[in-house]
Amino acid sequence: MTRKIRLGAFLPGGGQHIASWRHPDQPADGATSFAFHRRLAETAERGLFDAYFLADGLAVGFGGAREGGNARVAGFEPVTLFSALAPLTQHLGFIATSSTTYEEPYTTARKFASLDLISGGRAGWNVVTTTGDATAQNFNRDTQLPHADRYRRAHEHVDVVRKLWDSFEDDAFLRDKETGVFFDPEKLHDADHKGAHFSVKGPLNVPRSAQGHPVIVQAGQSEDGRDFAGAHAEVIFTAHQNVETAREFYADVKARARAHGRNPDHVLIMPGVSPFVGRTEDEAREKYDRLTGLILEEDGIGLLNGLTGGTLDLKGHDLDGPLPPAPPTEGMKSRQELIRRIADENGFTIRQLYRWVASARGHFTVIGSATQIADTLQEWFETGAADGFNILPPWLPTALDDFVDLVIPELQRRGLFRTAYEGRTLRENLGLPYPENRYSAARAASRAAE
Amino acid sequence: MTRKIRLGAFLPGGGQHIASWRHPDQPADGATSFAFHRRLAETAERGLFDAYFLADGLAVGFGGAREGGNARVAGFEPVTLFSALAPLTQHLGFIATSSTTYEEPYTTARKFASLDLISGGRAGWNVVTTTGDATAQNFNRDTQLPHADRYRRAHEHVDVVRKLWDSFEDDAFLRDKETGVFFDPEKLHDADHKGAHFSVKGPLNVPRSAQGHPVIVQAGQSEDGRDFAGAHAEVIFTAHQNVETAREFYADVKARARAHGRNPDHVLIMPGVSPFVGRTEDEAREKYDRLTGLILEEDGIGLLNGLTGGTLDLKGHDLDGPLPPAPPTEGMKSRQELIRRIADENGFTIRQLYRWVASARGHFTVIGSATQIADTLQEWFETGAADGFNILPPWLPTALDDFVDLVIPELQRRGLFRTAYEGRTLRENLGLPYPENRYSAARAASRAAE
Repeated sequence: MTRKIRLGAFLPGGGQHIASWRHPDQPADGATSFAFHRRLAETAERGLFDAYFLADGLAVGFGGAREGGNARVAGFEPVTLFSALAPLTQHLGFIATSSTTYEEPYTTARKFASLDLISGGRAGWNVVTTTGDATAQNFNRDTQLPHADRYRRAHEHVDVVRKLWDSFEDDAFLRDKETGVFFDPEKLHDADHKGAHFSVKGPLNVPRSAQGHPVIVQAGQSEDGRDFAGAHAEVIFTAHQNVETAREFYADVKARARAHGRNPDHVLIMPGVSPFVGRTEDEAREKYDRLTGLILEEDGIGLLNGLTGGTLDLKGHDLDGPLPPAPPTEGMKSRQELIRRIADENGFTIRQLYRWVASARGHFTVIGSATQIADTLQEWFETGAADGFNILPPWLPTALDDFVDLVIPELQRRGLFRTAYEGRTLRENLGLPYPENRYSAARAASRAAE
Repeated sequence: MTRKIRLGAFLPGGGQHIASWRHPDQPADGATSFAFHRRLAETAERGLFDAYFLADGLAVGFGGAREGGNARVAGFEPVTLFSALAPLTQHLGFIATSSTTYEEPYTTARKFASLDLISGGRAGWNVVTTTGDATAQNFNRDTQLPHADRYRRAHEHVDVVRKLWDSFEDDAFLRDKETGVFFDPEKLHDADHKGAHFSVKGPLNVPRSAQGHPVIVQAGQSEDGRDFAGAHAEVIFTAHQNVETAREFYADVKARARAHGRNPDHVLIMPGVSPFVGRTEDEAREKYDRLTGLILEEDGIGLLNGLTGGTLDLKGHDLDGPLPPAPPTEGMKSRQELIRRIADENGFTIRQLYRWVASARGHFTVIGSATQIADTLQEWFETGAADGFNILPPWLPTALDDFVDLVIPELQRRGLFRTAYEGRTLRENLGLPYPENRYSAARAASRAAE
């Protein structure tokens, strides 16, 4: 089977670009409209995307300022939203973000196992450590945990969750009405975990789904984040401004996966791409200029502050001057560095910087015809920079429609993308292996050794 | 408007009765079948029930033994399940159980607000403190918190959740594409809660739904439980074996609500009823005997142990002798007392006791024709014992079908039950008031005082 591009659709109902809600095509109440999210899921499925992907935050300020122009100030909790969308779709996967810092492993394991069961094996968990003091203050703390502590907790959290997901072996359920034996207690297993951060006896009260475990997804790019990706992640969402840093990242994470004893082909690297698609390049540029022109100054400033850890107060600065220095914080380190690098490399003023990052919050923006965009994706895919992409349409739904109607057919013509879903589950569509239950595997191994 | 009976449908996919999964009509995999839960929701909606109600546990042993005969050993997490059922229904409410002991208020507030938004205002939260050391051991503890501590935490948890639900005033969202003002920051409010158990700054990142707040439901019957009900609950699920204790409970809780300054008409008391419905009384008795005959001895013993706090090990006891004494535990106190009272009042042997409680785990079992069952419900409803009932069909789906096809029409003929849904939201159907946003109310009050 030839290697195919994997595609995630990053579709917050409020739009990705900071001014997207002001776009004439975007419903102003999209962030809190279930009907609109349903329309987006149906379009993503029509486009044969692998999965619908949503970020998440546990505070109002997430992903932008708590000021009047932020359309993402309120919305759905992603696991409940995806549960509701699952029965309305048949093939699309659902990758929901959930925090290892502010949830307990039993709760995490349970809600994703339940979504996986509801969807017939189409769930993924985007593992995040969740940054920001505003969030910490919603969970009995004054300030966030240091970056390294968050990652230590994340490693343990994921280990416990995966163990809990194996609580029932696949053949544990006998359901014999005659004898009254519903399940085999020998095939139900405690996790018996006692670690530095968590103590969890188990077992989990949800069985495995058609895909065994939800797919583990991750997006950190710092040293800690890359190490975590190599150890655990099956899909990696990453932000790069050019193919060179993407290639470096790709090679590095695949090597880390290998060092952890994993098959690097089972670690899919999917950079974010924000596409402005036109029938011509000029039309695409017009779309870009139109949306960029809708950004309010205070929202642009608020966005930069949010993306750089909440310490960069640009009020009063000359927006047509350079970005002032600011110390790194314990927030999302890789994102802070990326934003500053974009400013430095391009010699951007503050205004130019926020205009550039507003479309994709640091992800790669491509502007062009379907042919040009397919050329770029193909180059990244064929030169060791990507196994696929997370597509972040800058506004919704028409920028998603453009991608589905113009770019997908071009990728299909080139043999780079599927023309029908291959499987029933997210894992099958992504070409990821079915994780054998650890206890069944241990029993088989001990039987073989006898 | 004449007062009408309110009806909840308590429909665990694995069946309510301990042996229900062995019944020929019950799908053996019902507990983990989404299609089966969908069928149940559709039937409940056809029967014009106010809400679909689900209990919940955070450990495998919940609601029965961890032994081979327990069909409820694994299932869906209720909030994700109800989110998935919400878009497939139009009127039915969804009351999901969630724990104040093992969740954080921000998380609780958020998931219920999200379900409420997805369902268009049809969510309810059944507040539980969650008993049992097995659960505690899944959440970093060795033993459960003492009963009184759990209730203190529950009071504070609910207070914080309700405050978070008011974070955005109803008119906070302007969504003015022209000016770029999405919301009015003056109408977004921090909770600023600092209490004995929780410190939560807020605001919540989900807006209010069409019904303002999810409906608060509760089921504790101990002294602490009744006090909690009087202070917070809008719907109360309660277990009584006869109309006299139900009347005592009804009067007591309504008085407590009044003492808390609440309108007692806005506190709906709904005892659980497990109906065996036949076209004749004999047919109903045959249905009862058929199901009861399917109980395995070890499952009956395990059930009694589970219901009495996990300390009553009856293995080796003469099943045709009396229930041995056992000390009360820090578990669900009211349920332990109830089970013992049933044994004492009826002079039951162990076997007779488990046969009796197996159908409804301590709730009232009625066996008879539609007329007889309607007589009983009418008596309870008209003599100060109930505002409605939670119907617990002993097996599924046919015992639910029996109730919908035989008892509901009889209640309608008597003018005791609706013939069509009155409103769009769960609150509207239950006749509960729309909770005004506390900040809007304070602003209106201060304006009136000027």
